[in-house]
Amino acid sequence: MPLHNFHIIESTLREGEQFSTATFTTAQKIEIATLLDQFGVEMLEMTSPCASPRSEADIRAVLAENLNLRVLTHVRCTREDAQRAIDTGVHGVDIVIGTSPQLMTHSHGKDIRQIIDLAADVLSFVREQSPDIILRFSTEDSFRSSEADLMRVYLAIADLGLVNRLGIADTVGVAMPSQVWRLVNQLVRMTGLDIEFHGHNDSGCAIANAAAALEAGATHVDTTVLGLGERNGITPLGGLIARLYTLNRDYVSRYNLPLLPQIDRLIADICQLDIPFSNYITGSSAFTHKAGIHAKGVLADPETYEAINPGDFGLTREISIGHHLTGWNAVRNRAQSLGLNLDDQTLRAITQTIKQQADDNALTPQEIDDLLMEASLQTAGGLA
Amino acid sequence: MPLHNFHIIESTLREGEQFSTATFTTAQKIEIATLLDQFGVEMLEMTSPCASPRSEADIRAVLAENLNLRVLTHVRCTREDAQRAIDTGVHGVDIVIGTSPQLMTHSHGKDIRQIIDLAADVLSFVREQSPDIILRFSTEDSFRSSEADLMRVYLAIADLGLVNRLGIADTVGVAMPSQVWRLVNQLVRMTGLDIEFHGHNDSGCAIANAAAALEAGATHVDTTVLGLGERNGITPLGGLIARLYTLNRDYVSRYNLPLLPQIDRLIADICQLDIPFSNYITGSSAFTHKAGIHAKGVLADPETYEAINPGDFGLTREISIGHHLTGWNAVRNRAQSLGLNLDDQTLRAITQTIKQQADDNALTPQEIDDLLMEASLQTAGGLA
Repeated sequence: MPLHNFHIIESTLREGEQFSTATFTTAQKIEIATLLDQFGVEMLEMTSPCASPRSEADIRAVLAENLNLRVLTHVRCTREDAQRAIDTGVHGVDIVIGTSPQLMTHSHGKDIRQIIDLAADVLSFVREQSPDIILRFSTEDSFRSSEADLMRVYLAIADLGLVNRLGIADTVGVAMPSQVWRLVNQLVRMTGLDIEFHGHNDSGCAIANAAAALEAGATHVDTTVLGLGERNGITPLGGLIARLYTLNRDYVSRYNLPLLPQIDRLIADICQLDIPFSNYITGSSAFTHKAGIHAKGVLADPETYEAINPGDFGLTREISIGHHLTGWNAVRNRAQSLGLNLDDQTLRAITQTIKQQADDNALTPQEIDDLLMEASLQTAGGLA
Repeated sequence: MPLHNFHIIESTLREGEQFSTATFTTAQKIEIATLLDQFGVEMLEMTSPCASPRSEADIRAVLAENLNLRVLTHVRCTREDAQRAIDTGVHGVDIVIGTSPQLMTHSHGKDIRQIIDLAADVLSFVREQSPDIILRFSTEDSFRSSEADLMRVYLAIADLGLVNRLGIADTVGVAMPSQVWRLVNQLVRMTGLDIEFHGHNDSGCAIANAAAALEAGATHVDTTVLGLGERNGITPLGGLIARLYTLNRDYVSRYNLPLLPQIDRLIADICQLDIPFSNYITGSSAFTHKAGIHAKGVLADPETYEAINPGDFGLTREISIGHHLTGWNAVRNRAQSLGLNLDDQTLRAITQTIKQQADDNALTPQEIDDLLMEASLQTAGGLA
């Protein structure tokens, strides 16, 4: 599997801005870009300079930081948009045009022949202006496009010899991983170019689709922090990291993983969002073990019920005890932590007491400690 | 594809209870079960009667409601647990035992031969007690188990002729969709039994894996509302619905889809959770369109950028206007809604004004309306 060689195109400052509550000031954009650079993402995609005056100025502002990452901007397939992108001094231009029947009708009104001609004109124009700029051509809504149309477009563009990278986009979040794998595999075999995958998450496959793309030979994946984007967003940075980490920790060892919690918190704070309770790695209970059999296993060896080591992200696990699903191994472990030497019969009885009480109300850690201390005073043995 | 024939095993009252903040009273369990029954889930899995006194009593309480759905409970592979399950009068017993090296070492200490013997004993015991009960055997942590071990176990169990269903479980959330497809496909071909998939979401593939299982011939998928479960949870009910809907609306047309928002809200309220902003279908911006080109497309035809029709779930779409990514089509649409007849040049100028102002602060809908009304008063034409 070629999973060592991929690059992250972090698009929080482009796709992420398309999330309903996301607006970033210049200072925030620089803070985000700097943190993502420290994390180690290779590329940063920013909103088109044509979107608003600030969008244009901020590309220059981020470029002036001289970060290690390459700065890209994402523009429509027109000479005017491309020229404004080049004028910012950006490292790369990402050209996009819709190829699905829906977008051909309602976005730009062109047919496939016209799309190819227009793309050839704009890509040639960019390459003439800027021989060294990183140039990508992407279709939009690739997975509702006719497969034959897609191949016509990509093969025509590849034949021009002008672009560094071809992009495919699951714009409305409908692709299945097997479809992504097939399309990427075809493009890799037929064009030999770098391939970028951009996937929305409307039907919950944005992470699986990105992983399938990489398995098939894609070289670049678009992410945003917390998955922010149009509607419910795209492949989240942390989710992609979790996916690749569980396949092989080495795939992501080059990134500064302990920065991830700070990155997720920063974006959540700026956008006035709560980090979802179910978020990858940084969700409130991502490393909380509750049911008795889970607690037992994790106390013996965390890998029993953990595919991800929280310590690799500067986080810690939690064993939850004061609930009706608890088990006596967790209770015994807590007694031992308190230095109490209680026999198994006593510990099992306390476990039953906790279960019964917790059927009405969960117990606090202090209430559990009180139960254990009280039992210790009542039984022989006492403090170990 | 056999995707018409699947059944949902809704496990909010079992796996869901294993989420850190989830505890349900008897009345809440009945309310949840009733709502899920109205939604149309076929099966409801409840916590083992061995977990706590209330857990046992509540299985009887839910059974007494005489809902359409079948009530199952999930127990360890022992005669004692199985007996207590049968004694509740439950419709189905789900037996589970770990088969990965990690769980064999730290959960029960048995080897594969002993697992097969124990399972044969317990399954025979259940079938003797209750010839008609729905009986499932599942391995735990199937995707970290040796493939040969899995096949030894499943083929031995299938040969007994005692169970209705075999379960596979991605207990720590590591499986890739292609792996799930292969394992399910093997089991379908070799055993002919119903197959259930249970998948955790640690690496973001729980929905894709459930869909892959169904594509390969699985008959049952475990879900919980909002994906609640150990750590960051399992396949969410709404996410599975979104996935299958986008493949083919007919796959989920038998469910009472407009109840989904109420179901998600009920569980979030009880567990004192916010519905994640990025949640499938019911997230705050699942049907919010922001960037200008998206708004333009959706105004022409919602399907341009919507794979899911919010109306099918009793929800509405929103076109966001007052931000720096806005476009003049969205502004024109708003002017038309207000009955204002503004020329294109004026609308484009207002769009630029909005973009520039929104670079500093997003505009409220009222501020946009004020801009449009003011322009209407200043230009010829005025009210249409």
